[in-house]
Amino acid sequence: MARIALDAMGGDHAPQATVAGALLAVAELDPAHSVVLVGRSAIIEQTLDEALRGEHAALATFRDRLLVVDAPEIIEMAEKPSAAIRAKPNSSMMVGLRMHAEGACDAFVSAGNTGAQMAASMVLLRLYEGLKRPAIVTIFPTAEKPVVVLDAGANVDCSAAELVQFARLGAVYAHDMLGRANPAVGLLNIGEEAEKGNAVTKEAHALLAQSGLHFVGNVEGRDLPAGHNHQSALDVVVCDGFVGNAILKFYEAVAPLMVGLLVKAGLPKDRIMGALRQLDYSEYGGAPLLGVRGVSIICHGRSSPRAIASAIKVAVQAVDNHLAEHIGKRLAGPEGAAGATA
Amino acid sequence: MARIALDAMGGDHAPQATVAGALLAVAELDPAHSVVLVGRSAIIEQTLDEALRGEHAALATFRDRLLVVDAPEIIEMAEKPSAAIRAKPNSSMMVGLRMHAEGACDAFVSAGNTGAQMAASMVLLRLYEGLKRPAIVTIFPTAEKPVVVLDAGANVDCSAAELVQFARLGAVYAHDMLGRANPAVGLLNIGEEAEKGNAVTKEAHALLAQSGLHFVGNVEGRDLPAGHNHQSALDVVVCDGFVGNAILKFYEAVAPLMVGLLVKAGLPKDRIMGALRQLDYSEYGGAPLLGVRGVSIICHGRSSPRAIASAIKVAVQAVDNHLAEHIGKRLAGPEGAAGATA
Repeated sequence: MARIALDAMGGDHAPQATVAGALLAVAELDPAHSVVLVGRSAIIEQTLDEALRGEHAALATFRDRLLVVDAPEIIEMAEKPSAAIRAKPNSSMMVGLRMHAEGACDAFVSAGNTGAQMAASMVLLRLYEGLKRPAIVTIFPTAEKPVVVLDAGANVDCSAAELVQFARLGAVYAHDMLGRANPAVGLLNIGEEAEKGNAVTKEAHALLAQSGLHFVGNVEGRDLPAGHNHQSALDVVVCDGFVGNAILKFYEAVAPLMVGLLVKAGLPKDRIMGALRQLDYSEYGGAPLLGVRGVSIICHGRSSPRAIASAIKVAVQAVDNHLAEHIGKRLAGPEGAAGATA
Repeated sequence: MARIALDAMGGDHAPQATVAGALLAVAELDPAHSVVLVGRSAIIEQTLDEALRGEHAALATFRDRLLVVDAPEIIEMAEKPSAAIRAKPNSSMMVGLRMHAEGACDAFVSAGNTGAQMAASMVLLRLYEGLKRPAIVTIFPTAEKPVVVLDAGANVDCSAAELVQFARLGAVYAHDMLGRANPAVGLLNIGEEAEKGNAVTKEAHALLAQSGLHFVGNVEGRDLPAGHNHQSALDVVVCDGFVGNAILKFYEAVAPLMVGLLVKAGLPKDRIMGALRQLDYSEYGGAPLLGVRGVSIICHGRSSPRAIASAIKVAVQAVDNHLAEHIGKRLAGPEGAAGATA
């Protein structure tokens, strides 16, 4: 039984996309789970009414599985994170995360300002010991199974020990959320040999080799779309947040470029989109911020109702599988301490 | 009139691909230009005979525009660069670059061991003052015009001042080789605002803003396939060699992944390949190593005869347009000195 707080005001298409996503989620989830819409309650109620009179009329029976909690302030997408969370303690972001921190619900989901969500999650949920910042995880669709890539942008200057921490966080995530037993962890680098790379990745390679994780060596850029490196199929790939963010945004933009060229050449768009469906990010919904003492799910600002519903299901899964507690144990264990102090 | 030395033994498909590429190039180039095949002369002559008896019989009349220079040793693709160039002074790589350094020819082209080519070019051609290593340039196909991206792997730990040097090198390249007047230079980063990024890119942003270059601000990963950022169409994007190499290899692998999915879904391969032709790297041939006092063109190890021929034409263009001399002037000028010492 999980109670999920959803930032109803967060995202480019809020509150229409968030309200509709919440409806889709409760319609599909076991009735034991519930969703709390956090935001300006009058607007949320009105949006709910409109959705149930219009496109989502078939879901009217699920309305009473949605709760609404009022939060009068809104953190805009472009606001500076630390200033915004100080200036707007009654924003949907802060109210929703405070409910989670105080035990009134079990997880928080937002498609709003990612930096603010990270800052507010650090303040209200707090980090596990030994971490400086949480990591943003992302799922890369590949030719084989999807691969967990982190950090995707929270940590732009990383030490080798921090990359090892990402490896531990990612391995727990791959196990709990994707069902990968003994996840294979690779290190993003610019050559397959151990001695290749920059100063940080060379050191990280040595630390990962003795980390107790199932480390399968360096991963080159070309191995990411393939889903395997020279040695193994991949479950987790670690990198600093600068390169992770650059490649993630690049990946998101390459597919539309190619689809555009194919459509321009007269190939049928529906068949193209069908063929490339496994590369579609929105299928994977949101991603948990890893390293905080709770479940804080980050969604893309452009999230559709379907993506919001997927993210709510990810939150339920994270709660059910005790993802945060497992991460805490892994970081506190003898291996975790070794990684953090190496 | 340019005389191009080609490493006949370099590359995954040498000497067949290099010999055939040289034939294609002289058949298409103005007769004033010539190509010197450097390598094991008996094998080269035999490969030439076979090519002219077989697939390339129509090119027989161009054989006498090819010279052959013997070099008995071969640097293999997997050899350690610095050890290989010391151990094999009579390799095709070293002999060809020495001919260029001594003025017996005007440029050198290889699809062989890239690290060895870089090391040998530094030793034999030497760097312009103020540089620690040359930069590898690569051309990213985009939805608009191709964009020059550097460094693509030679420099994995870069200072902000080095990123500014790459910007100067790339701007000269874009002007001389791609005909871009006053090239727009962007900085690969993880947000469009000046204050975003890691320690190095934040400092580089400030230096580039006062560099005298046409600096158009930060470029996010998603801007690369688009060919423009929030401010401008892009001609040059600078980044350290770690992230440049990771994204380049990622890009090279994403297209085949997508094509594979589309073909599997029953879409016609020939029409797909036709539609995506503008994304094909081999159309652009090789890329000069920037910063050495000469023309040293790096080709992909997998180069086809067509890619080798393109690279030879790139070499001719670099010689004709005085690319290396222009780079030397730009680095020695008041702007160059400012960038190097900032």
